[in-house]
Amino acid sequence: MENIRVGIWGFGAMGSGMANMLLKKEGVEIVAVCDKHEARVGKDIYEVLGVDRKDRKEIIIKSNEEEAFEEKCADVVLLATDSFTKGAFDKIKFVLERKINVISTAEEMSYPDAQEPELAKIIDEIAKENHVSVLGTGINPGFVLDLLILALTGTCERVDHIKASRVNDLSPFGHAVMVEQGVGVTPEEFEKGVKNGEIAGHVGFPESIKMITDGIGWDLEKVDQTRQSIVSNVYRQSQYAEVQAGNVAGCKQCGYGYVDGEVKVEMEHPQQILPNLEGVDTGDYVQIKGVPDISLQIKPEIPGGIGTIAMCVNSIPHVINARPGLKTMLDIPVPRAIMGDMRNMVEEKKECGCGCC
Amino acid sequence: MENIRVGIWGFGAMGSGMANMLLKKEGVEIVAVCDKHEARVGKDIYEVLGVDRKDRKEIIIKSNEEEAFEEKCADVVLLATDSFTKGAFDKIKFVLERKINVISTAEEMSYPDAQEPELAKIIDEIAKENHVSVLGTGINPGFVLDLLILALTGTCERVDHIKASRVNDLSPFGHAVMVEQGVGVTPEEFEKGVKNGEIAGHVGFPESIKMITDGIGWDLEKVDQTRQSIVSNVYRQSQYAEVQAGNVAGCKQCGYGYVDGEVKVEMEHPQQILPNLEGVDTGDYVQIKGVPDISLQIKPEIPGGIGTIAMCVNSIPHVINARPGLKTMLDIPVPRAIMGDMRNMVEEKKECGCGCC
Repeated sequence: MENIRVGIWGFGAMGSGMANMLLKKEGVEIVAVCDKHEARVGKDIYEVLGVDRKDRKEIIIKSNEEEAFEEKCADVVLLATDSFTKGAFDKIKFVLERKINVISTAEEMSYPDAQEPELAKIIDEIAKENHVSVLGTGINPGFVLDLLILALTGTCERVDHIKASRVNDLSPFGHAVMVEQGVGVTPEEFEKGVKNGEIAGHVGFPESIKMITDGIGWDLEKVDQTRQSIVSNVYRQSQYAEVQAGNVAGCKQCGYGYVDGEVKVEMEHPQQILPNLEGVDTGDYVQIKGVPDISLQIKPEIPGGIGTIAMCVNSIPHVINARPGLKTMLDIPVPRAIMGDMRNMVEEKKECGCGCC
Repeated sequence: MENIRVGIWGFGAMGSGMANMLLKKEGVEIVAVCDKHEARVGKDIYEVLGVDRKDRKEIIIKSNEEEAFEEKCADVVLLATDSFTKGAFDKIKFVLERKINVISTAEEMSYPDAQEPELAKIIDEIAKENHVSVLGTGINPGFVLDLLILALTGTCERVDHIKASRVNDLSPFGHAVMVEQGVGVTPEEFEKGVKNGEIAGHVGFPESIKMITDGIGWDLEKVDQTRQSIVSNVYRQSQYAEVQAGNVAGCKQCGYGYVDGEVKVEMEHPQQILPNLEGVDTGDYVQIKGVPDISLQIKPEIPGGIGTIAMCVNSIPHVINARPGLKTMLDIPVPRAIMGDMRNMVEEKKECGCGCC
């Protein structure tokens, strides 16, 4: 069997991180990269990554997707360009129509039915027409506040209420994230930023909540979200941000999923720089009330960047194996680390010609 | 769509617990029960369960499987009779040949390739010939020390070492479990019981370890196991057992999976009555060393009985949806609580006649 062939669209922190991870794996190779960033276009990916190419073929980064991805040139394209389904849609369509499977980091694509049911339907149809599949995943949405919770409920006879929180440290992230989360601004600027949409906070609560409620069969009535400033009592300084005491260290976002007129799914995601300076422990926490009650913690939290990179790469065999269409974490076997030859995880395709299998 | 039809084989604590759980669910009904226990044979299950039958049809417990299960009389049979693949084999074969899917509580059936690769192959063939599927699951093996760990590794670029432990309280379990775990005996009697096999301890480490190593692509060389007495420093008394200070409160079992000549998967499962009397906290713990490191705890542990019941019932739709053959937790989407109509989780079977789909 030949190596599994992977294309990458978007070669920023996520896309290049996936490339770095893939280069350490057996039975898989990168065959094409598309990225529009001027500093990278036309360069060999090994030069951009600062990695010895050894006897591998040069892979020149193309700015034009038509040049980057020919029909069936790859088994899967990892798409790391957007947060929203609308923004990613044309790119997903482009790749699927070239009869290539897609894994997207777009947060909304983890469960596009939550906010873009019409686009979700179209994407599903395009994928089926082209006999390929498409999945959105990442650390969150994609794992901590949805798949992990769903997996725990599998041990429950009954679930009455779910509360989960992800408390993380934003310090390693770059300037763009600091702006999105309002790090360093005054409380007044934060309020303004939330109103005009400049402070977007976390993208993914409606997706995680609907994945959970659909997954266990609760009828979700609505999702409410709030975004509050985390005002620092102390001076905080990290590589990319500085926060004066009295100013904003980050954004505490909450999400509430209503079922039968009650909040049955509750999520908290306070994101800030250096929470330890005020004695806040980072971690992932899940509390299920039901039969039985379950209380889980992961301390510190599973890190965001590497977690998303790993979830996407580790999902490759499952997306290749999946029946055609739009898939979510509800549909595929649980992704796991790939320490052996990736080809061993790919099932042989049966060519019976029925189109169903 | 008609209700999902479930048969139950073995109506002890597990089988009757599954029946109780199923009676609270929508879109599913119990259609047949087989059990050889004299006190139950010939009785209506609702009488045995002490549950109001309402307008449901009587279901008489049959001692003979030929009488209990006709061809295609159910969509799935829950088989709760054995711990070992060898013991369950004839029953699994019987049900599969009646073109009915099987979910087994037998610990070894969670990953029969670990210790019974030949039987596993035969079971797979029988299932495929009859276009049905078979899965072994439970709380452990089936979730805590395998699927949960595998799910966490999905967020890892690399895994170097896995250590996990499940620390539980045996107090709620009955006499048979007390004997199996050596509760109440002297340390000398414990040693003897381990040697002659009367103190079996936990069944499932080879299965959990091989599910993990196969799942992430490590080449498992061997599994070692140890069973040690947990000698109590204090007097302990529970409903089913009494332990004098200096005698045995339970069995600490350890499992070691070797990869590349090193122990890479390490498991501990100390099971005793009333561990709190000596300040031991019960819980499920996972430590992954890799990129990133992950440290998880669930406190208290997910309870064994209800957890196994729930994992089996919650796997029903996935086993019905699965392609024919022997399945493991590596193959199916993650089971989750079923709070809505179970039929909504079952995919419509395509009848294209190809036999693959």
